[in-house]
Amino acid sequence: MNPHSATLLISCPDKKGLVSAIANFLMTYNANILHADQHQDAEAKLFLMRVQWDLEGFTLPMESFAAAFAPIAAKHDMTWQVSLSSRKPRVAIFVSKYEHCLVDLLHRWRIGELDCEIPLVISNHEDCRRLVEFNEIPFHVIPVSKDNKAAAEAEQFRLLEEAGVDLVILARYMQVLSQDFVKRYPNKVINIHHSFLPAFDGAKPYHRAFARGVKLIGATSHYVTEDLDEGPIIEQEVTRISHRDDVDDLVQKGRDLEKVVLSRAVRWHLDNRLLSYNNKTVIFD
Amino acid sequence: MNPHSATLLISCPDKKGLVSAIANFLMTYNANILHADQHQDAEAKLFLMRVQWDLEGFTLPMESFAAAFAPIAAKHDMTWQVSLSSRKPRVAIFVSKYEHCLVDLLHRWRIGELDCEIPLVISNHEDCRRLVEFNEIPFHVIPVSKDNKAAAEAEQFRLLEEAGVDLVILARYMQVLSQDFVKRYPNKVINIHHSFLPAFDGAKPYHRAFARGVKLIGATSHYVTEDLDEGPIIEQEVTRISHRDDVDDLVQKGRDLEKVVLSRAVRWHLDNRLLSYNNKTVIFD
Amino acid sequence: MNPHSATLLISCPDKKGLVSAIANFLMTYNANILHADQHQDAEAKLFLMRVQWDLEGFTLPMESFAAAFAPIAAKHDMTWQVSLSSRKPRVAIFVSKYEHCLVDLLHRWRIGELDCEIPLVISNHEDCRRLVEFNEIPFHVIPVSKDNKAAAEAEQFRLLEEAGVDLVILARYMQVLSQDFVKRYPNKVINIHHSFLPAFDGAKPYHRAFARGVKLIGATSHYVTEDLDEGPIIEQEVTRISHRDDVDDLVQKGRDLEKVVLSRAVRWHLDNRLLSYNNKTVIFD
Amino acid sequence: MNPHSATLLISCPDKKGLVSAIANFLMTYNANILHADQHQDAEAKLFLMRVQWDLEGFTLPMESFAAAFAPIAAKHDMTWQVSLSSRKPRVAIFVSKYEHCLVDLLHRWRIGELDCEIPLVISNHEDCRRLVEFNEIPFHVIPVSKDNKAAAEAEQFRLLEEAGVDLVILARYMQVLSQDFVKRYPNKVINIHHSFLPAFDGAKPYHRAFARGVKLIGATSHYVTEDLDEGPIIEQEVTRISHRDDVDDLVQKGRDLEKVVLSRAVRWHLDNRLLSYNNKTVIFD
Repeated sequence: MNPHSATLLISCPDKKGLVSAIANFLMTYNANILHADQHQDAEAKLFLMRVQWDLEGFTLPMESFAAAFAPIAAKHDMTWQVSLSSRKPRVAIFVSKYEHCLVDLLHRWRIGELDCEIPLVISNHEDCRRLVEFNEIPFHVIPVSKDNKAAAEAEQFRLLEEAGVDLVILARYMQVLSQDFVKRYPNKVINIHHSFLPAFDGAKPYHRAFARGVKLIGATSHYVTEDLDEGPIIEQEVTRISHRDDVDDLVQKGRDLEKVVLSRAVRWHLDNRLLSYNNKTVIFD
Repeated sequence: MNPHSATLLISCPDKKGLVSAIANFLMTYNANILHADQHQDAEAKLFLMRVQWDLEGFTLPMESFAAAFAPIAAKHDMTWQVSLSSRKPRVAIFVSKYEHCLVDLLHRWRIGELDCEIPLVISNHEDCRRLVEFNEIPFHVIPVSKDNKAAAEAEQFRLLEEAGVDLVILARYMQVLSQDFVKRYPNKVINIHHSFLPAFDGAKPYHRAFARGVKLIGATSHYVTEDLDEGPIIEQEVTRISHRDDVDDLVQKGRDLEKVVLSRAVRWHLDNRLLSYNNKTVIFD
Repeated sequence: MNPHSATLLISCPDKKGLVSAIANFLMTYNANILHADQHQDAEAKLFLMRVQWDLEGFTLPMESFAAAFAPIAAKHDMTWQVSLSSRKPRVAIFVSKYEHCLVDLLHRWRIGELDCEIPLVISNHEDCRRLVEFNEIPFHVIPVSKDNKAAAEAEQFRLLEEAGVDLVILARYMQVLSQDFVKRYPNKVINIHHSFLPAFDGAKPYHRAFARGVKLIGATSHYVTEDLDEGPIIEQEVTRISHRDDVDDLVQKGRDLEKVVLSRAVRWHLDNRLLSYNNKTVIFD
Repeated sequence: MNPHSATLLISCPDKKGLVSAIANFLMTYNANILHADQHQDAEAKLFLMRVQWDLEGFTLPMESFAAAFAPIAAKHDMTWQVSLSSRKPRVAIFVSKYEHCLVDLLHRWRIGELDCEIPLVISNHEDCRRLVEFNEIPFHVIPVSKDNKAAAEAEQFRLLEEAGVDLVILARYMQVLSQDFVKRYPNKVINIHHSFLPAFDGAKPYHRAFARGVKLIGATSHYVTEDLDEGPIIEQEVTRISHRDDVDDLVQKGRDLEKVVLSRAVRWHLDNRLLSYNNKTVIFD
């Protein structure tokens, strides 16, 4: 990973000349393009692009980027965002009692697989404190009940804002977020659901998979939207089970899926590889 | 495969001594056991077993098997069936216009992967005639409309009975069978559904998978019961798709899943490896 | 698939401005770009690109394309080729006795998955004649022994040239091609090897996989080069086996891999999605 | 899992009546069989069996088991071992600097996926101390160089014997064990190799996989024998890579394989599900 690069994500109505327009803009300032990937959705008539370039030798100061790019963006009706590799995203992890996804994320973070800051972990239980503090991350317990939900979220918002959080990861956090929460963090909350969505959305998916007698179980990471388990899917994976597996076996096999599927989604998000539209995601190479 | 073997499938309430009882019964007649596999469902308190033995040297004539085994079966409240490798199952394939599963099944049959007779193929369209007749199998066209359904099924029953059919394969047959049909052939009709059930049951699963933005698509083979797409699942498989795949790509990738998933189910059924209970299947090794 | 499109494949030393240069060239003639994908190999300092555009509205006649593109190609030291969707590639299939890959390829071709002409099938045995002729393709038997190899290949060359063949598929053809053959058709002969290369290259891979006790078996499609089983890998796939599987089971499970892995390679080649360099392949999206 | 069960593993020359003999022996003492699985290797003419039964109500005291079973074992020339669930296996983990497998194993152990004691971790480096001690396990650093190898192993043996270790896990331990070590712990050392064996045995498998241009990478867990990377394979898994992945990507993707593949092998070993013969493994259900 180049420590000094910029990544631009663009979506706009599809038409001729978009690649030229963007490539020429970057060439004007002597950009060395490291990666570029684009996608055209023929049905939605949409053009989506990710382009990453080296800032070494790039002659446009990044504080002037928005102003310089504005005319092109306006002309082509682009929605866009630019991210600098020098500014690490700030991530909050929410967890309840199951710690496998948390353990996995923290280890990936320690060894550099996840390029971010983790200023805090929030839980509704005490269980994970020792693990989080071993990783030298502040751990906040905010109990949640049906009576104090609004107050609990207010406290969560305060902590998230204080820490300047860009992304919230629900690492098997067993509480449903309010509509208010979801609206504050659009495409900024990633959840792991322990089934192959849309099968077995909602509660107790492993029990229901067992009852239905499926031969594969899955896990799904997705952006959280106002409709529970209905947000844009980022990644899915499955594993084989047999009639010999009981619910506990499904839970055990499923943990391995959940860890991998959640961590991929987080890494792609942190690497600015994800764009979401029409309740789907594009994963740029 | 031994050309002269017998296979016994048993299910009964679980208790001590069942393996002994069965093994001793077979030992009494000097059986050489080729394969044995059993399963206990702890929750359902059920014992299920498949045992296959060589008929060479077996001292009980198979025409006397039922009488000899009856006391043990009665004592342990067993449901059982015995099959002889010398008697090939007789299979009818139902197909509409999509021929990929049919081509695949017929080729597997020709090279000996599917150990059965195929006395007939029934379709509601003419399209597959040339292919079926190339394989020297009688091809019957029985058009089906909402007005003639009962008459069409009557004609199907006549052909199936005349041919002594044991198993019906719906190889992308695009008609829903009546309750009457399903009742006549319990656990004897295998269907391929082009989704990862229970996701996208019913019509147009590839279109709906595309619309939902899933990252994997699947196929499911199952026994047909009175509830559409709700029967015991036999086999499932998935393959990865991306935002670059449109519905046609899903259809194309899905064909490869359908062929494999359907043929495995058929082979296991023909090899007497399947037992179904509580709307699930056991697949014996 | 657009019936009137052109696809350009390019490889050249990597440097700034290549995407701009190509995009601007196409824009000059009002190209409507349908797909574009590029890859930079940082280690090899190589730039590789595939771009496909609609010929509807493209103002440069394709017979003038080479002349018009030559200055850009020369400036950037490009190796390139352009293909027109209106000109279907002409494919010869070589087969011996195992027909599963042939059956699979012919069916995919009949239903439009493989967009090519198949002017002939060549075999060293009579076995597949009826199948090939059912598909209305000329079938040529050229027996091969260690004594007549050169003469046999001379006859093969004559048939291939007469038919104007662009691609040769070795669909479990059990003869090793001479160096002369391989040199005549560089990156134009695709083979299927029934192992997960580089494991078990050479003879009897399923037997050796069984003897080694591996838990997964594989298949590999690759371009044929002068070193047997050492050419650029195009696609690989594996499937799980267990201690219960004997060599025949491996052969049976392997067939399903071989069919899928070979057909993907062929489709990508026909769609101009493959570029090979440094004995590797790039598979463009 | 039943806390009071016994598991018997048997291998012997195949013949008639073995299942009866074993089942009747257990029935004599009123065993409640929880699981039974057997395998016949037709080529090797070998019978292998695992049977687990509840000790509740079993009328033979386990201290008398060996004496009571001896006549049957002798008659059928059986190799056998019996394990009690009440006696947890004692496991030593060897690690160097890469900690991902260690983190994974320790977490699985903490949440009960691995049913064992871990009395010590041995490393040739200090790096993992904090992690191991967080898990309240003694951590021993024994530096290894080409000059002190014998002395280092002597110290390892002392620690292993003192701790009464039954199984050694090489969790990316970057030293080759001596023949002496391997002979002391036959079928008791499990290693993870970061390739799909037999491909890329030996050093730097990810670099070599990258250089060869494979489309899938793998990991293999196996028992360590005197031939490096040649021991009986326990488990393998692969994941897809593309031309976009460089060696670092392979390393990162490979870590997820290594963790899963090693932990499955360890769990099966601890559950007495593994038997090894002819340099292969049987994995009992």
